[in-house]
Amino acid sequence: MKRKVLIVGGVAGGASAAARLRRNSEEDEIIMFEKGPDVSFSNCSLPYHLSGVIDKAEKLVLMSTEKFLKQYRIDARVNNEVLQIDRKNKTVKVKNLLTEEIYSENYDKLILSPGAKPIVPNIPGIEKVNVFTIRNVVDIDKLKRFVDSLEAKDVAVIGGGYIGVEAAENLREAGYNVSLIEAMDQILRPFDYDMVQILHKEIYDRGIKLVVGDKVESFEENSVVLTSGKKINAKAVIMAIGVAPEVDLAKEAGLELGITGAIKTDKNYMTNDKNIYAVGDAIEVYNSLSHSMTKLSLAGPAQKQARSVADHINNKATLNKGYIGSSAIKVFDYNGASTGLNESLIKFLNLKINYEVVNIIVSDKVGIMPDSAPMHFKLLFEVPTGKILGAQAIGKGDVTKRVDTIATAIKFGGTVEDLKDLELCYAPPFSTAKDVVNYAGYVASNLLSGDFKQVTVDKVRELVENNAYIIDVREKGEYARGHIKGSKNIPLSELRDRINEIPKDQTVYLHCRTGQRSYNATLALQNEGFDQIYNITGSFLGLSFYEYYNDKFTGRNSIVTEYNFN
Amino acid sequence: MKRKVLIVGGVAGGASAAARLRRNSEEDEIIMFEKGPDVSFSNCSLPYHLSGVIDKAEKLVLMSTEKFLKQYRIDARVNNEVLQIDRKNKTVKVKNLLTEEIYSENYDKLILSPGAKPIVPNIPGIEKVNVFTIRNVVDIDKLKRFVDSLEAKDVAVIGGGYIGVEAAENLREAGYNVSLIEAMDQILRPFDYDMVQILHKEIYDRGIKLVVGDKVESFEENSVVLTSGKKINAKAVIMAIGVAPEVDLAKEAGLELGITGAIKTDKNYMTNDKNIYAVGDAIEVYNSLSHSMTKLSLAGPAQKQARSVADHINNKATLNKGYIGSSAIKVFDYNGASTGLNESLIKFLNLKINYEVVNIIVSDKVGIMPDSAPMHFKLLFEVPTGKILGAQAIGKGDVTKRVDTIATAIKFGGTVEDLKDLELCYAPPFSTAKDVVNYAGYVASNLLSGDFKQVTVDKVRELVENNAYIIDVREKGEYARGHIKGSKNIPLSELRDRINEIPKDQTVYLHCRTGQRSYNATLALQNEGFDQIYNITGSFLGLSFYEYYNDKFTGRNSIVTEYNFN
Repeated sequence: MKRKVLIVGGVAGGASAAARLRRNSEEDEIIMFEKGPDVSFSNCSLPYHLSGVIDKAEKLVLMSTEKFLKQYRIDARVNNEVLQIDRKNKTVKVKNLLTEEIYSENYDKLILSPGAKPIVPNIPGIEKVNVFTIRNVVDIDKLKRFVDSLEAKDVAVIGGGYIGVEAAENLREAGYNVSLIEAMDQILRPFDYDMVQILHKEIYDRGIKLVVGDKVESFEENSVVLTSGKKINAKAVIMAIGVAPEVDLAKEAGLELGITGAIKTDKNYMTNDKNIYAVGDAIEVYNSLSHSMTKLSLAGPAQKQARSVADHINNKATLNKGYIGSSAIKVFDYNGASTGLNESLIKFLNLKINYEVVNIIVSDKVGIMPDSAPMHFKLLFEVPTGKILGAQAIGKGDVTKRVDTIATAIKFGGTVEDLKDLELCYAPPFSTAKDVVNYAGYVASNLLSGDFKQVTVDKVRELVENNAYIIDVREKGEYARGHIKGSKNIPLSELRDRINEIPKDQTVYLHCRTGQRSYNATLALQNEGFDQIYNITGSFLGLSFYEYYNDKFTGRNSIVTEYNFN
Repeated sequence: MKRKVLIVGGVAGGASAAARLRRNSEEDEIIMFEKGPDVSFSNCSLPYHLSGVIDKAEKLVLMSTEKFLKQYRIDARVNNEVLQIDRKNKTVKVKNLLTEEIYSENYDKLILSPGAKPIVPNIPGIEKVNVFTIRNVVDIDKLKRFVDSLEAKDVAVIGGGYIGVEAAENLREAGYNVSLIEAMDQILRPFDYDMVQILHKEIYDRGIKLVVGDKVESFEENSVVLTSGKKINAKAVIMAIGVAPEVDLAKEAGLELGITGAIKTDKNYMTNDKNIYAVGDAIEVYNSLSHSMTKLSLAGPAQKQARSVADHINNKATLNKGYIGSSAIKVFDYNGASTGLNESLIKFLNLKINYEVVNIIVSDKVGIMPDSAPMHFKLLFEVPTGKILGAQAIGKGDVTKRVDTIATAIKFGGTVEDLKDLELCYAPPFSTAKDVVNYAGYVASNLLSGDFKQVTVDKVRELVENNAYIIDVREKGEYARGHIKGSKNIPLSELRDRINEIPKDQTVYLHCRTGQRSYNATLALQNEGFDQIYNITGSFLGLSFYEYYNDKFTGRNSIVTEYNFN
């Protein structure tokens, strides 16, 4: 049966749907409308043009309309905007933006993949600054040309999401004076507050003026005015506070929206009109961990949805197990990856999940290999089932490898016990014999079994202020090079000989560099009858990263004599 | 209850057991015997000393006996060899190799972690060459000092397993004239013959004299004589043909050996003596995919076994789900990783598994990122269940990440359908929105559904010789820069207009650069009623890698006009 399928919007969702439709059927007439000049480009790569990592804007375009026609017999109409859907007559009204011509096309099936648009709030004085957003190749080309032409290289990025941070990073790499302004107390919400401090530090150290917990109040001539009163010079302002799903077309056509305001679809990404599907950033999807609807602006899921739709139209079975959300980002020398739930999301959604957290810092490859580096890894799991809920990794090494493994385990309903048993590919240039992921499984299992108790680094400041009994079990030389103020140094190597110095009637907090030696000390003391021992997870290295940026940003007193980042 | 636990052998197995025993109990007396001078070193890192990546041999030592004593209260006795086990009296006879003193120690529990020793066959003339093996820090230090002292820098490595290849690579990096001699027709058995050709090529291109399918017949003064008659200069010969489990001690004590000749243990790694456990390279383990016993010389499993034993001694529950075997290697600019079963193992074990193979070549990160590179990926899965059996990846990028994901899926009994659904961490510097692993899942599902038929690159030579009808669907310019001899060029972009040129009564083989465009062409033709279409999986890029080394090695005629490696 020959069908006519119209697709609104290209890129990840639309272009993938079109290609899969063609593979499913040679007969179908397939027309793809895109209001911009490019129908297929790497939107995730846009920020990399700002630094010149991707030197020419044209390179961002993945497929030309000509290729779509010749290789797939797909009629890709760029600069053509779909204005209206007439569901009764199964037609759409289209405007050719170059010729201004308005015409209509009928359809058997219609696929909406309009994406989401950057939010630009009407802040007072916005006309006094040069505002840019980043959505497509035209945007990034325009922005790049503008900043290239500046004499005073002051640029402000408003919003610390993925696009904002990547834009800030790439502009900084290109030598600009970059300010990154985030209204919340942290950037990059896929990472918890404790983890993201590592990235705050990196951004700060690389010379970006990072401002968190402060809002844009207004704009003045070439400057941004914050609620705090701070003024920030900006010849160019990049608005990256978030995106809103493009739902106007759907809404006007009477298609149902969901509770998030995005387009509502069923298991097969079909809207409430059986001839209209929707995919990508414009729809809401089911999060299988939080059991709630969510918006997910990610390219991978958009492609998967597109393929599902093309298959459903062709009566092929499709799969929809919901989403867990996995993502990654490079921030200068650091890499970050995240999957599933995190603590702030659990709190934000007020989820009634009883969970526990493991925070470990382990070498990402064999420690004697020249480029080995500490990896900060956080695992969330349900108590008492041990079911894995999410993970975050940040470090200079291979973080996505570790979080991909966790994402895979989550998809299979895996537990922390399963992580102990994973056989991962090891050689010294890549990892350690017991990988980060195995290690996290061991620690989580120990915690779940009640083998030891822990506190995390975010509690240490309060402990210090309350004169808690903190023992640093590192060797004397390490202690001398920086330690928690007020902590007592009893090296693990002397612990058993000096056990009488430790009070039995008091809560004692142990730490070392990363938590591994202090874990051994914790068990040794417990085995000797001490029952109020807590291991400080993350230990001195984690604490240094945790405290550093806020110390710098707020000017408060540090709780360590010196930081330690190695 | 205070116990006395003796451990024979350090490194991955013994040292891990000791540390875990201590964490489990502060009371136990723990003595670890090691006949060498180091009780804990990174054996997997030994070859990296040859190139100077690890500059000093001492760095390979991870824990000193002093640290074991001070931090863990473990009595680690180096240069002490256990000579005999008296099971009846629960004692061992030990020789202090420095003082020649012989003494005995009693035990409540005994853990054997003696490892495996390099095999050195008694080849005629072996006394005429300088033979080295690589097992510990002393060995590598000795080898390094010897080759450093050579004037003629000719070194031969016998055996193309992991150690042999890593030794060859690191010596080559240090400027030596290295020959690598392998009796089988390929190096690195964790990779199938088709995949390993990429590494053969890399080794050849980097100037190592690689000889496969040829055996050492004898040695002459500073040279190796092969069965073929070839003579290879070698001032130093490194024997790396394999390792044999150290079972003498166990055997003499009447402990049972298994069918592989390694020590037999139960689920808890207990031998047939309930007070004696064994772990590491000296034991055989259950492969949960082949359902057979196997020897597994890997550090990760040894550590896991050691932990299990320490826990079992302390009445803690342990887990033994068998092993699938995952490993990785760096070979100059290429990385390789492998997990589970491969085709040669299935054939070798004569397993009655009905399986199918997917061979794909996809970009390891977004193609426009400067360091993106093709990744060669092979997936084995059961037919018709789709159950994943194994995977291999080779490329310049992040291979372990992809194979770790597959290894994780295998542990959960995952299918190729599950791979489609995985949500992996994506950003342009790390991967593509639809990752290699997802992509493999899609291709495998299509194959399983009978959507298309394929042949792999190892069949192409025969096709060419039989004048099969091969269509190259790349663009004209690509075809001009090298193609399969006798192939017809019909670019995908012209396919639909030139469809009449293609015979319907003949089997037609399609290919492009990587198999993606030809897959689209395959479906297009099938949709037009062609029913004898085969996609050449791996296509021109895969074929070039597959043919190159054997062409060079044997001097046979190439079946391509030019190779293409990009």
